[in-house]
Amino acid sequence: LFIGGEWIEATNIQDLYSPYDGEKIAEIPFATIQEVDSAISAAEKTKKLMKKMPAHERADILDNVSRLIGENREECARLIATEAAKPIQTARGEVARTIMTYKLASEEARRLPNEMVNMDAAPGGENRTAYVLREPSGIVAAITPFNFPMNLVAHKLGPAIASGNPVVLKPASQTPLSAYYIADLFDKAGLPKGALNVVTGAGSVVGERLVTDDRVSVITFTGSPEVGKDIRNKAGLKKVTLELGSNSAVIIDKDVHIDEMVDRLIQGAFTYQGQVCISVQRIYVHDSKKRELVKKMKEKVDQLILGDPMDDATDVSALIAPKERDRLLSWIEEAVTKGAKIVTGGELKGPMITPTILENVDSTMKVSCEEVFGPVVTVSTFSDWSDAIDRVNDSDYGLQAGVYTEKLSHAFTASEDLEVGGVMINDIPTFRVDHMPYGGLKNSGTGREGIKYAIEEMTERKLVSFKLS
Amino acid sequence: LFIGGEWIEATNIQDLYSPYDGEKIAEIPFATIQEVDSAISAAEKTKKLMKKMPAHERADILDNVSRLIGENREECARLIATEAAKPIQTARGEVARTIMTYKLASEEARRLPNEMVNMDAAPGGENRTAYVLREPSGIVAAITPFNFPMNLVAHKLGPAIASGNPVVLKPASQTPLSAYYIADLFDKAGLPKGALNVVTGAGSVVGERLVTDDRVSVITFTGSPEVGKDIRNKAGLKKVTLELGSNSAVIIDKDVHIDEMVDRLIQGAFTYQGQVCISVQRIYVHDSKKRELVKKMKEKVDQLILGDPMDDATDVSALIAPKERDRLLSWIEEAVTKGAKIVTGGELKGPMITPTILENVDSTMKVSCEEVFGPVVTVSTFSDWSDAIDRVNDSDYGLQAGVYTEKLSHAFTASEDLEVGGVMINDIPTFRVDHMPYGGLKNSGTGREGIKYAIEEMTERKLVSFKLS
Amino acid sequence: LFIGGEWIEATNIQDLYSPYDGEKIAEIPFATIQEVDSAISAAEKTKKLMKKMPAHERADILDNVSRLIGENREECARLIATEAAKPIQTARGEVARTIMTYKLASEEARRLPNEMVNMDAAPGGENRTAYVLREPSGIVAAITPFNFPMNLVAHKLGPAIASGNPVVLKPASQTPLSAYYIADLFDKAGLPKGALNVVTGAGSVVGERLVTDDRVSVITFTGSPEVGKDIRNKAGLKKVTLELGSNSAVIIDKDVHIDEMVDRLIQGAFTYQGQVCISVQRIYVHDSKKRELVKKMKEKVDQLILGDPMDDATDVSALIAPKERDRLLSWIEEAVTKGAKIVTGGELKGPMITPTILENVDSTMKVSCEEVFGPVVTVSTFSDWSDAIDRVNDSDYGLQAGVYTEKLSHAFTASEDLEVGGVMINDIPTFRVDHMPYGGLKNSGTGREGIKYAIEEMTERKLVSFKLS
Amino acid sequence: LFIGGEWIEATNIQDLYSPYDGEKIAEIPFATIQEVDSAISAAEKTKKLMKKMPAHERADILDNVSRLIGENREECARLIATEAAKPIQTARGEVARTIMTYKLASEEARRLPNEMVNMDAAPGGENRTAYVLREPSGIVAAITPFNFPMNLVAHKLGPAIASGNPVVLKPASQTPLSAYYIADLFDKAGLPKGALNVVTGAGSVVGERLVTDDRVSVITFTGSPEVGKDIRNKAGLKKVTLELGSNSAVIIDKDVHIDEMVDRLIQGAFTYQGQVCISVQRIYVHDSKKRELVKKMKEKVDQLILGDPMDDATDVSALIAPKERDRLLSWIEEAVTKGAKIVTGGELKGPMITPTILENVDSTMKVSCEEVFGPVVTVSTFSDWSDAIDRVNDSDYGLQAGVYTEKLSHAFTASEDLEVGGVMINDIPTFRVDHMPYGGLKNSGTGREGIKYAIEEMTERKLVSFKLS
Repeated sequence: LFIGGEWIEATNIQDLYSPYDGEKIAEIPFATIQEVDSAISAAEKTKKLMKKMPAHERADILDNVSRLIGENREECARLIATEAAKPIQTARGEVARTIMTYKLASEEARRLPNEMVNMDAAPGGENRTAYVLREPSGIVAAITPFNFPMNLVAHKLGPAIASGNPVVLKPASQTPLSAYYIADLFDKAGLPKGALNVVTGAGSVVGERLVTDDRVSVITFTGSPEVGKDIRNKAGLKKVTLELGSNSAVIIDKDVHIDEMVDRLIQGAFTYQGQVCISVQRIYVHDSKKRELVKKMKEKVDQLILGDPMDDATDVSALIAPKERDRLLSWIEEAVTKGAKIVTGGELKGPMITPTILENVDSTMKVSCEEVFGPVVTVSTFSDWSDAIDRVNDSDYGLQAGVYTEKLSHAFTASEDLEVGGVMINDIPTFRVDHMPYGGLKNSGTGREGIKYAIEEMTERKLVSFKLS
Repeated sequence: LFIGGEWIEATNIQDLYSPYDGEKIAEIPFATIQEVDSAISAAEKTKKLMKKMPAHERADILDNVSRLIGENREECARLIATEAAKPIQTARGEVARTIMTYKLASEEARRLPNEMVNMDAAPGGENRTAYVLREPSGIVAAITPFNFPMNLVAHKLGPAIASGNPVVLKPASQTPLSAYYIADLFDKAGLPKGALNVVTGAGSVVGERLVTDDRVSVITFTGSPEVGKDIRNKAGLKKVTLELGSNSAVIIDKDVHIDEMVDRLIQGAFTYQGQVCISVQRIYVHDSKKRELVKKMKEKVDQLILGDPMDDATDVSALIAPKERDRLLSWIEEAVTKGAKIVTGGELKGPMITPTILENVDSTMKVSCEEVFGPVVTVSTFSDWSDAIDRVNDSDYGLQAGVYTEKLSHAFTASEDLEVGGVMINDIPTFRVDHMPYGGLKNSGTGREGIKYAIEEMTERKLVSFKLS
Repeated sequence: LFIGGEWIEATNIQDLYSPYDGEKIAEIPFATIQEVDSAISAAEKTKKLMKKMPAHERADILDNVSRLIGENREECARLIATEAAKPIQTARGEVARTIMTYKLASEEARRLPNEMVNMDAAPGGENRTAYVLREPSGIVAAITPFNFPMNLVAHKLGPAIASGNPVVLKPASQTPLSAYYIADLFDKAGLPKGALNVVTGAGSVVGERLVTDDRVSVITFTGSPEVGKDIRNKAGLKKVTLELGSNSAVIIDKDVHIDEMVDRLIQGAFTYQGQVCISVQRIYVHDSKKRELVKKMKEKVDQLILGDPMDDATDVSALIAPKERDRLLSWIEEAVTKGAKIVTGGELKGPMITPTILENVDSTMKVSCEEVFGPVVTVSTFSDWSDAIDRVNDSDYGLQAGVYTEKLSHAFTASEDLEVGGVMINDIPTFRVDHMPYGGLKNSGTGREGIKYAIEEMTERKLVSFKLS
Repeated sequence: LFIGGEWIEATNIQDLYSPYDGEKIAEIPFATIQEVDSAISAAEKTKKLMKKMPAHERADILDNVSRLIGENREECARLIATEAAKPIQTARGEVARTIMTYKLASEEARRLPNEMVNMDAAPGGENRTAYVLREPSGIVAAITPFNFPMNLVAHKLGPAIASGNPVVLKPASQTPLSAYYIADLFDKAGLPKGALNVVTGAGSVVGERLVTDDRVSVITFTGSPEVGKDIRNKAGLKKVTLELGSNSAVIIDKDVHIDEMVDRLIQGAFTYQGQVCISVQRIYVHDSKKRELVKKMKEKVDQLILGDPMDDATDVSALIAPKERDRLLSWIEEAVTKGAKIVTGGELKGPMITPTILENVDSTMKVSCEEVFGPVVTVSTFSDWSDAIDRVNDSDYGLQAGVYTEKLSHAFTASEDLEVGGVMINDIPTFRVDHMPYGGLKNSGTGREGIKYAIEEMTERKLVSFKLS
């Protein structure tokens, strides 16, 4: 446990195993309520200090973290690959993005969006100078998932520190190593002790306490809709950002060149075994292009290399846990029973599920209507553009959607009518750069991340008005 | 009931009485769950229409409403005076502000804060044109209090309509008349039928349904902390803005001229019998000025005229309900028992409580630590500036604070250290113009009102990205 | 002359004649240098008053002007039709836009873009609160053209008054009546006397003086490039906005429906006899669509009705002056001599030139490379998209361009590569709404109009920094 | 000469001498018109490349430059000290700021202020998606002064490169070494060849050509008012930013602690021999504080160490040229003749003028009304606050002003009424951090620097509107 800038021996310890080969990789602390309390207390003590810290110092600390990760790129990537079974090439990509995320946070630290208010715009407001400061909200409790153990942590720590808030971080139980590693880098980067605390453990203990403790001002959570809603309903007047799941879709119009997008679709569907919130799960392709698309996708999928995440050649490895594997196999089975056809994949290969393309899928099957979070993509067809849009919208989720078309009117119609947080014209829904606003509608969550947007959710507006005589 | 643009006969009816003389003034509908449902359904049907409506049409409708109120000023003021026992002069002031609030909403309708995103700021984002649209969130459920029956309704309807959302409005049970009146004006102003629905009734029926119905996207509530928290914990992933109470304070430094501020303090403490969220409740005055302040305040208070709200001369009238009168008398009694001294007031005069100044108050007395919402102000002293700030902060609330000083360093220290949503230098905490950000910290709520700020809370960001080849 | 809020008898008077029938329509003052001086002095005296005027008062004055024009719509339209020979239907359109322009100015008056500066973003800036005010620059000299005698005046008076600057207006010598009319409305609307002065007369006297007088801070000019450059080179450190000419072009791709755009093109080319800065002058159509386009345009053009501007049926009337008629005829003759072919038009009909379509035009002909400012449009073809863009860019001007295409990549390529101030995808270059940024590159000018953009050019940033101990 | 990314042997060469000891320090090129031409041509060729370069690449180049300067801090400082006779400690301070300036430019490169336009805010604008891009204006000609040879160059190169413009830089003839040094660092940092060209030589040749060449789009000049106005009057439609001189003033109220500000005043008046645009030249102190102020300033001034700029101990060294020394001595003489009294200084000491305090100064003396640009400060008194403000305003210049007061109303009055580009409450006018808006009114220039503000002056707004069917 990293509390108050010190490494604390935890009362309880659990073993951590590799998702790929089941080997034990570390022992990690399972915090008690008392330990969570002391982390919150440590954060509490730094509130004033963090609030008063000049912007350029906050910027420097984050810039230092960015630089330190850059100096330890490979070590970071291997940590991620080990604890999350993320193929090492993909893990390196995550590290590169993490470097950028902290750099962006450094830059935004200088730019808290304070603003003037023209009080004299309304009668009664004459002779006043007024402005609105963005003050740090207070302690931020960050609860992060396993799938981007460094970059999704950066999306919470970056804006929190940038805007002058202390943090208590609860990383996913499967991916604590990179979180503790980052804590160490923040310490080296000059962050005051206590401004970042890392507490691993059970959601029912650590998470529960963070959500209900009155000293915590902001909860920022990335994870499942069930847990997200539960957090929201227990959090009282706290600010809560929830980045939940999705069953992201892409629409492919008839005027496009399939060759130009097949690699991108494969990437969107199978990178990190599809364990990405905005993984391509549903493809809606125009009738006329379906055969070509499925054929070309199958060719590419069959070339994907399954194996050890530490191996440079590996494209796809094991899911994060055996129960996820079982769940996914049962969903595929359900789909097949209901009439879906497996184009390729759908099998166990050691601890891994082979990358899977399904067709003849309908919207009641779990592989379509729920979040698959695994290496499975479904391909359906449409003939009418507005029908394609309706089918994407026929979902409890609304995170991002992709649209391939060369037609101006189709592009704009889709951008208007799709009920999602982000519409990617001529790209997959999986597209994200770390400064864009990111977040969803419906069960996909509430609030937006992307540094400057997350900063909005971690600060409070304070109006200051001077009446001049 | 006003549902789908039609006046609907309600199943249940209750009598409405004057808070001042207890006379029956109207019969009002008490909606059933089915009636609430049909209001939500009516709103649901206009979602698409409202979203597609051009900004200038939304602006025109709101401008029309503003103009129509202007053409019916006196009638509006009399409605408010009747149902809320608000002295007619004060009611006229509220009407003037309401006209401005809708005008500001009209102007903001043209200015939804859509913005560009420079995707190429990070590697991977090259060759993209991207922007963020502010789309209407969906149905807004507005739950409003009795104390500003027109202007606080405007602060919810204005931004909701400006940003293209349909609304279901539940006004306070004591002040439904002005709400129905506004519904009629919106109808005349050209708002599509169904885009505004007004449903009066019990919080446990109407409020409960609005908060839990999945078709509602936004709850905007002004009222008590207890109800506010309950709403928040039942609202799931809905967006929720809560404007709750306060025990607002003002600090008076030693270098100021008491004469210049006494009228303003009286106004802040006793306007509408103190039933204002940001009423002056706690005065902290420098030792050296206390005697002068209390003396001059007492003189002014004793000149205030109590009486019929319809009378032009009346300064102070009855509280909104007999039980509030009883509550307040018991609080004064508690304070006196604990050692407080009544400078003036504290008595019943017909249905009214005489304007009350208390001294020798400590922070454990209800008149200090809870929200008084009545014609009572406490005066305490301080000798040290930072001590004054600490005592203002020693509260569960944090809405606005006033600070009178001529000293630059005192002014800025206060503006930084006061834990409130708004600091008014050289003014009372009661100051508000309708376009400034307004809202509190701690138990005073979450979110900000003030048209453009409220619009943020009623819209969702949608990112649209075009990848260019 | 309207100076210091008074109607001043001028020393010199000239007769004003109708461009259509040559009848005398009024006598107008021709100001002497002394009279210009006294106008500047009158403006000077109101500088302080205008700077201190609360935003809501400035907003109200402009709102009043907007309303007063609305109440005198037909009179305004007839004034314009009379002095400018603008067909009455078109004049009514201008009046409607003028109402909107002043309304937008009213709204922007409340929104001067003051902003905070986070001083602590750099070392040395700690412990400071700082902001940037937009203060009025000082006296604005507005020099306006004949072609939109009300709305282009509004685009200078609106932002000037909105941002607290006094104005000296020199309208075009042919269109003084509407300018004096507006001066009267501003007076009625409550503008302080002296804050708006109208001085008609010779450019060499009035214009020259305004440009060189040290008391004038801003020149805003709409007119010819020659005069514009001359102003710029004499204006010293004054701020200067120049809205000069153009030979606007539109590109028509092969995938479009000609029927949907023919009316719009005719409108763009011949409205007000083509005397519009962004009139459609050059059409570049894909080879495959040329024949259809020319045929359909000819049909429509031949139906246009020439005649008295006061007649509701008139589409096209006389040019502003006989010498313009002669110039244009000589340009057409030059083009024909060099090989151009007249599809239709090119003839005198009473005082009017018949609406003219030319083909076989090359870029050296004056009808192509200079600003035609008359009822002439040229049609050329292209086969390659990038070639079409190059040919639009092969111009000394760069105001706006239109692009009709249904192809996403063509649309974005054009938007990036066209060297103009505004690219209108699927519209004519003539498109303008009054709040959009409007202005050109190259010889088309410098600076942008469109209320809030013009306000930027009429205000100075003042940084205010408070160092806190 | 550095042209097109190559080091070019110049036709003409001149010797460069040390301002301190007159030793020859280098030979520098004096460019011919042909050489200037080829620099412009080289820049022209990179326009397209620079415009299309992704923001993150522009950011990286500038970040690299910032880092490279950091790695060569001492060398940079010694270059400045050598060519400009800037005391080495002060030179080191300039280098530190230069590092920050390029870093800020790097960050702003990612943030070009593109924005959306809500076209549907006015009738006629329905069904449109529109935005405004900030496109690079084209070639920027940067003409820089001797006094901050690195940081004022950075204030032109930084924003120019950040916004995608190629540059031709003409540094001051006395300080070319650091300019060529920076050119080399930009080359190493990855800037495309030709995007930065450095041409030294005569203003009548190099400057003249840059100002009049049609291929140049932006002139950004820091220097004297005479040259500035001349540039403006020759530059035609080019955008021109002028940062000219000032005779900056500070007001000292009666309620302040002199001890807390004396060091700061000395620093403001004598740093780099007063050769700073915002050097403290005029002090207006309240009568009651004058004696104390002058006494304490004299004590400090007499401790200042004059000497070799390369010496760590040196506070003040020689002026930039013998003719400046002569000019300044004659101004002091004029002042004394007219009745001024020398408190201290006013003598030659080797090549240096001793730091000088003057009292009994009136506003007609050159040391008061013109820009002193040397180690001379005048002290005058006032009794009435508004009188002090009037006297500061009684100047042809208006760059920055300082105000020391503890009185809220005095501070705000000064901030409103001072006619300058920046008001520094409780600081000297000499205060500047590199991201704040910086620039003056009146003869102090036009336009603002400070990276993001300079970027506005180096970019053109392009409106792109998509009409949707």
